[in-house]
Amino acid sequence: MAKIKKINHVAIAVPDVDASLTFWRDALGLAVDHIEDVPSQKATVVFIPVGESEVELVRPTSEDTGVAKFLAERGGGMHHLCFEVDDIQGMLEDLKAKGVRLINETPLELPGRKMAFIHPKSSGGVLIELYELTAP
Amino acid sequence: MAKIKKINHVAIAVPDVDASLTFWRDALGLAVDHIEDVPSQKATVVFIPVGESEVELVRPTSEDTGVAKFLAERGGGMHHLCFEVDDIQGMLEDLKAKGVRLINETPLELPGRKMAFIHPKSSGGVLIELYELTAP
Repeated sequence: MAKIKKINHVAIAVPDVDASLTFWRDALGLAVDHIEDVPSQKATVVFIPVGESEVELVRPTSEDTGVAKFLAERGGGMHHLCFEVDDIQGMLEDLKAKGVRLINETPLELPGRKMAFIHPKSSGGVLIELYELTAP
Repeated sequence: MAKIKKINHVAIAVPDVDASLTFWRDALGLAVDHIEDVPSQKATVVFIPVGESEVELVRPTSEDTGVAKFLAERGGGMHHLCFEVDDIQGMLEDLKAKGVRLINETPLELPGRKMAFIHPKSSGGVLIELYELTAP
């Protein structure tokens, strides 16, 4: 059976990158690995390693994304939780067989990873992303 | 300067322990370490190790807690993010000097750990808990 290995990242919706850095980098003392425009997510993402995981600060660059709607409705906060798995295809098949509702029934393939989201209706309101890392 | 070491846990508010286990244990395949009544939190907590961190499913046992209010307002979802630090007293002094609003200005001492919360007004809407593990 496919297995969850660890928390890959916790994604946090932020309305302003510089203001968020004042807290996460300057106050908490965390080190930013890099800041990247991610066109596939229509977002600017700040990657902050924390132990074996990351905090990702996500600022939408378009109004028509889930993160932009989340910000408009709730303000900033934790947006999703990403688990790294050893076999995303097997995990998705297994979840589907168990009646779990998926946003992506087949993984999206991006450089370095395959990814899919579980629908929060099936996970008690938590938006969960799954990653399988692949050779870059 | 005090330092964040890792994500200790992500706490998830759940209205029903059995229903939450159907997803987190049975569908995702995560192993429950133990389930415990935690009177200091007025909650039943399911401890689920994930890599070096944990997912904690928190079901309030009283209506007058922050988690109970969160559930009543939003339904289930991610409630707080807990970082493990090497020196919680130093971290709190440092945060206070930088103008960060704290819920607990001095750490609460519990068996095995000291803990404090940062106010979400200072962290862009994310409720952040800090832990320093101590000898049991």
